[in-house]
Amino acid sequence: MKCYELQGPSGIDGLALVDKPAPEPGDGQVLVRLRAATLNYRDLITVKGGYGTRQKFPLVPVSDGAGVVERVGPGVREFAAGDRVIGSFFEGWIGGEPSEAKMRSALGGAVDGVLSEYRVFPKHALVRTPEHLSDIEAAALPCAGLTAWSAIVKLGGVKPGQTVLTQGTGGVSLFAVQFAKMCGARVIATSSSDAKIERLKQLGADFTLNYKTAPDWGKKAREWSGQGVDLVVEVGGVGTLNESIRATRIGGTIAFIGVLAGPPPSDLRLPLMVMQQQRLQGVTVGSVEDLQAMVDAITTNGMKPVIDRTFNFDQTKDAFAHMESGAHFGKVAIEIG
Amino acid sequence: MKCYELQGPSGIDGLALVDKPAPEPGDGQVLVRLRAATLNYRDLITVKGGYGTRQKFPLVPVSDGAGVVERVGPGVREFAAGDRVIGSFFEGWIGGEPSEAKMRSALGGAVDGVLSEYRVFPKHALVRTPEHLSDIEAAALPCAGLTAWSAIVKLGGVKPGQTVLTQGTGGVSLFAVQFAKMCGARVIATSSSDAKIERLKQLGADFTLNYKTAPDWGKKAREWSGQGVDLVVEVGGVGTLNESIRATRIGGTIAFIGVLAGPPPSDLRLPLMVMQQQRLQGVTVGSVEDLQAMVDAITTNGMKPVIDRTFNFDQTKDAFAHMESGAHFGKVAIEIG
Amino acid sequence: MKCYELQGPSGIDGLALVDKPAPEPGDGQVLVRLRAATLNYRDLITVKGGYGTRQKFPLVPVSDGAGVVERVGPGVREFAAGDRVIGSFFEGWIGGEPSEAKMRSALGGAVDGVLSEYRVFPKHALVRTPEHLSDIEAAALPCAGLTAWSAIVKLGGVKPGQTVLTQGTGGVSLFAVQFAKMCGARVIATSSSDAKIERLKQLGADFTLNYKTAPDWGKKAREWSGQGVDLVVEVGGVGTLNESIRATRIGGTIAFIGVLAGPPPSDLRLPLMVMQQQRLQGVTVGSVEDLQAMVDAITTNGMKPVIDRTFNFDQTKDAFAHMESGAHFGKVAIEIG
Amino acid sequence: MKCYELQGPSGIDGLALVDKPAPEPGDGQVLVRLRAATLNYRDLITVKGGYGTRQKFPLVPVSDGAGVVERVGPGVREFAAGDRVIGSFFEGWIGGEPSEAKMRSALGGAVDGVLSEYRVFPKHALVRTPEHLSDIEAAALPCAGLTAWSAIVKLGGVKPGQTVLTQGTGGVSLFAVQFAKMCGARVIATSSSDAKIERLKQLGADFTLNYKTAPDWGKKAREWSGQGVDLVVEVGGVGTLNESIRATRIGGTIAFIGVLAGPPPSDLRLPLMVMQQQRLQGVTVGSVEDLQAMVDAITTNGMKPVIDRTFNFDQTKDAFAHMESGAHFGKVAIEIG
Repeated sequence: MKCYELQGPSGIDGLALVDKPAPEPGDGQVLVRLRAATLNYRDLITVKGGYGTRQKFPLVPVSDGAGVVERVGPGVREFAAGDRVIGSFFEGWIGGEPSEAKMRSALGGAVDGVLSEYRVFPKHALVRTPEHLSDIEAAALPCAGLTAWSAIVKLGGVKPGQTVLTQGTGGVSLFAVQFAKMCGARVIATSSSDAKIERLKQLGADFTLNYKTAPDWGKKAREWSGQGVDLVVEVGGVGTLNESIRATRIGGTIAFIGVLAGPPPSDLRLPLMVMQQQRLQGVTVGSVEDLQAMVDAITTNGMKPVIDRTFNFDQTKDAFAHMESGAHFGKVAIEIG
Repeated sequence: MKCYELQGPSGIDGLALVDKPAPEPGDGQVLVRLRAATLNYRDLITVKGGYGTRQKFPLVPVSDGAGVVERVGPGVREFAAGDRVIGSFFEGWIGGEPSEAKMRSALGGAVDGVLSEYRVFPKHALVRTPEHLSDIEAAALPCAGLTAWSAIVKLGGVKPGQTVLTQGTGGVSLFAVQFAKMCGARVIATSSSDAKIERLKQLGADFTLNYKTAPDWGKKAREWSGQGVDLVVEVGGVGTLNESIRATRIGGTIAFIGVLAGPPPSDLRLPLMVMQQQRLQGVTVGSVEDLQAMVDAITTNGMKPVIDRTFNFDQTKDAFAHMESGAHFGKVAIEIG
Repeated sequence: MKCYELQGPSGIDGLALVDKPAPEPGDGQVLVRLRAATLNYRDLITVKGGYGTRQKFPLVPVSDGAGVVERVGPGVREFAAGDRVIGSFFEGWIGGEPSEAKMRSALGGAVDGVLSEYRVFPKHALVRTPEHLSDIEAAALPCAGLTAWSAIVKLGGVKPGQTVLTQGTGGVSLFAVQFAKMCGARVIATSSSDAKIERLKQLGADFTLNYKTAPDWGKKAREWSGQGVDLVVEVGGVGTLNESIRATRIGGTIAFIGVLAGPPPSDLRLPLMVMQQQRLQGVTVGSVEDLQAMVDAITTNGMKPVIDRTFNFDQTKDAFAHMESGAHFGKVAIEIG
Repeated sequence: MKCYELQGPSGIDGLALVDKPAPEPGDGQVLVRLRAATLNYRDLITVKGGYGTRQKFPLVPVSDGAGVVERVGPGVREFAAGDRVIGSFFEGWIGGEPSEAKMRSALGGAVDGVLSEYRVFPKHALVRTPEHLSDIEAAALPCAGLTAWSAIVKLGGVKPGQTVLTQGTGGVSLFAVQFAKMCGARVIATSSSDAKIERLKQLGADFTLNYKTAPDWGKKAREWSGQGVDLVVEVGGVGTLNESIRATRIGGTIAFIGVLAGPPPSDLRLPLMVMQQQRLQGVTVGSVEDLQAMVDAITTNGMKPVIDRTFNFDQTKDAFAHMESGAHFGKVAIEIG
């Protein structure tokens, strides 16, 4: 079988297509023929060495994949050859509270990922693909989709009539718009591009703000919402946190997802969060049970993820370059086979 | 002003239209000119004396009303003449946990209700009417609407992709269908009439069961849902509880609303709830803050309550008789002025 | 090795001590030399055939055991020979929400139990024994202890200053008294024996009621508590439910544990639960993660379970007979080796 | 009657003892003869003008007071002359979620405080003093006590066996130690003084760290706790946040109380909170219903707040100076009459 491997933090050019024997499924394992993968910003950072010296190498990168069961190992009754499946971001976080041990199992990070024609998964780390989704659409869900789901539904507990603010048009933010609407909430969406703002409206955004022309978008969001928004999906890191705090109502929540580095602004208004009894909630993807709940919701509501563009398996480097360019709206996908 | 009064548990015929001086709003009070009221089954029971000897008389019956602010008392800055408003079912349950004291303030029960041209409300017991609703539609919300909201959203915590089962076509059940869909859930709805089942489908029901032809509807609902439903909105009392327990998944919830009397069936399967770790959750309307949250959700989603038929103020007895006949689908309304 | 086996629903006399080869630990498994077991009422029912025709036979009965790791299988780094450990009631419910699949793994029921000198456990189904507990005390925890923990802490969410009511002096009830005190709550405990009431007081009960002389104990508990109790640990089944409903405050919870059969009383007051917005919450033990949380709490607070009497392994039938007599106060234990 | 008044942000010396007519209780109001008050750091900031130009003046400062009902106004059946009572920090936050309107009612801030021989309270803003507490002890509860309660119990949801870290020996931190122990938790307490560390141990701290000799106290706390602490009560502001993040387990909470100003450190590790799925939860006192719950817990557990020193009413300036010196361990109290 063919797969991409990284020998070190070499950048996109270091991605090497190699031949390896396909693995065999052991006890409780499932061999999956991968059909599609999608990229997350985190995969780009990994390829460029951004996660430091503790990163495992050689590494098959990329966490998000979907495909078809080829063969099951002993003791697997839950799946059979031909079943369409999605792999969980964390192989070892089945359910319950997160822990260090559970989180030391991220695909394309702690363990090999999905840029591979075949991969063996533990049976408990797979969920079935909804009928209304293609394999490419299914491959869009594990990381960005589940992160947005955790922010909006699991940790945010968004209810009908509440107001959610999303930032920009990255994968997590677009999913957040869709899930917030699915929950019956109002959505305020920001972007720096009027063209993208049009697409945000088509996706369901009720109110939009161009943060280039409205750098005080937090204040404007608070005013539009009445008392302040109930939940901000903060993907910009500490740089946008001040406006997020300003946008949020007393007792509201900021789902904290952005991992962009850099020092905090010297006027960071964290103490305002005390007076306003706000909650800053760190979010990192979710468990296999959470993935199943999200897939159920996507099925029930016939939701489709936004796919920007699909590359062939041998164009994988181009896919990463496209991701890096920032020009995409929605997920960058790779069709594996 | 004119209002209906009951001198005792006299039945519908005892409803007397009387003249009284309109009240004056005191400190923190608001005088409302009522435009519409709607009936709940509980109002019929009250009129017929079903709540026993502790019921206050004389009584202006009926809890659910909406109208227009006529004049505000001293210290009221929250409302002004001309504002369209809805009255809360409980005048004294503003927010937080319920308590005996808070619940001793139900309109048309512990205190006078809304079958009256004018009524004084404490300012904290009113919420604004959404623009997209008529006064009649607004008057449909306080009791049945908020009961369904509490069952589905506040106490049930229904999430997208979950499955909710509703029983019949009473006011609470129709609201429950609408709120469950608003939450992104799947809905299984039961009825004894194929004609009503058609209307349940139009309202959003994903799967329907005629409980006359399918007395084992609980089993059928469990099968259709996969693992069992997440939430049953139980309005039938102990008589339907066995099928509700059967329908519900392990760890699921039965929102318990039915107050129909009568002894339990001798084969009542409550112990099954232990093995299945299910929750039976009593629900009685909600607080003013809950009402505001529900109204926000209705506004955001442009939802409209189902009105069966509207009677004039002087046809109030006919309205009660229509309620009693059970022929309605949706709320029975009275236009007051 | 020696173990007890049941060939069918034969009653206590059918318990046969047999010789079998000790099992070998496979991938991710741990071989435990069991030192002690304790009995639950459920074990007695199992032996007597009370769980019907679907019960697996032959069966090594009894769910609750503790011992010492003898040897670990491949891939087990979490435990080593010599570690003292407790086995989980459910082998397959590691964490998260319960499900049918997870609950089909109860020791001494769906799978073999612990009346055996050796037993292989999946590594994820074991927790370490606290230093301050003997093996016998440790063996008291898995079923009755965790059921009480789930009722009081996990599902009941008892907070300091709240009031908890316990019924009788069975294993779950005594643990419930201890956990409620650990949470800073007040405890009302009932019993039919003044001698046992003395011991309940020693265990921490703040107020006691002899339900023989005070059959209206629910009313008395409500009065003593002020507004009604926050949580009842209901172990008596539907027969005591009316008094439990009466004892509970508006918005309070009845943790429903009793599995005693029999028809409901014809005056069962379930509809009162609607008006009082009460919650009836089915409880069945808990997950391995719950067991770990409980063991942490027991360690932090130096808590010791109440052991009534300890029998030798070859007196196992006497232990069951003692259990059946109902004379015990606390857990009936068996020292295995 | 006599009371202290501030004409502006004048500092301690601007506190003037003035004569005023005692107020009369109106509808739903209660006249209280204050017996004691205690100081919070926030009162010192107020006196020194730290809350800026929007502060109301003239102002009777100080939020925390307790006393005896002198006389009740019309419509008050909940209290009678002679009842011992405690005033709520927020007069207008009775229950439910916080809001701007509710929080615009803080005593000694938005409205007059308690440095006064008499004060009128709305009846819903008072709770009864537990019998085992003196008026001085009762006056210690409203601000620091309830802030700690909200951090530990209401928002923190601390359970038996969890680990809580407290910082220093201010009022909130000492209450936090006491409430955490009341919840059955382990406590790690930090201080810069070995003498104070001894007193923290007497109060129940299980593990202590002198942050002068152990500037990496966060790392040490994480190690001692095993997986990291479940809850940090962060009173130091952004300056100590890095160590708090380090101390906290994956999925844990930092209750954020410190309002100390100043720019954040340039190496502020907020992004670590994302990876660790931690929650930073702003806390500001609580509602009257929360105060009642806390007082119930204090009563049940016979808890006594730590009083450092008591000044006479005419030594009020000395009391503020003592507060400012930072030499206290526990609350600085003023006996009013």
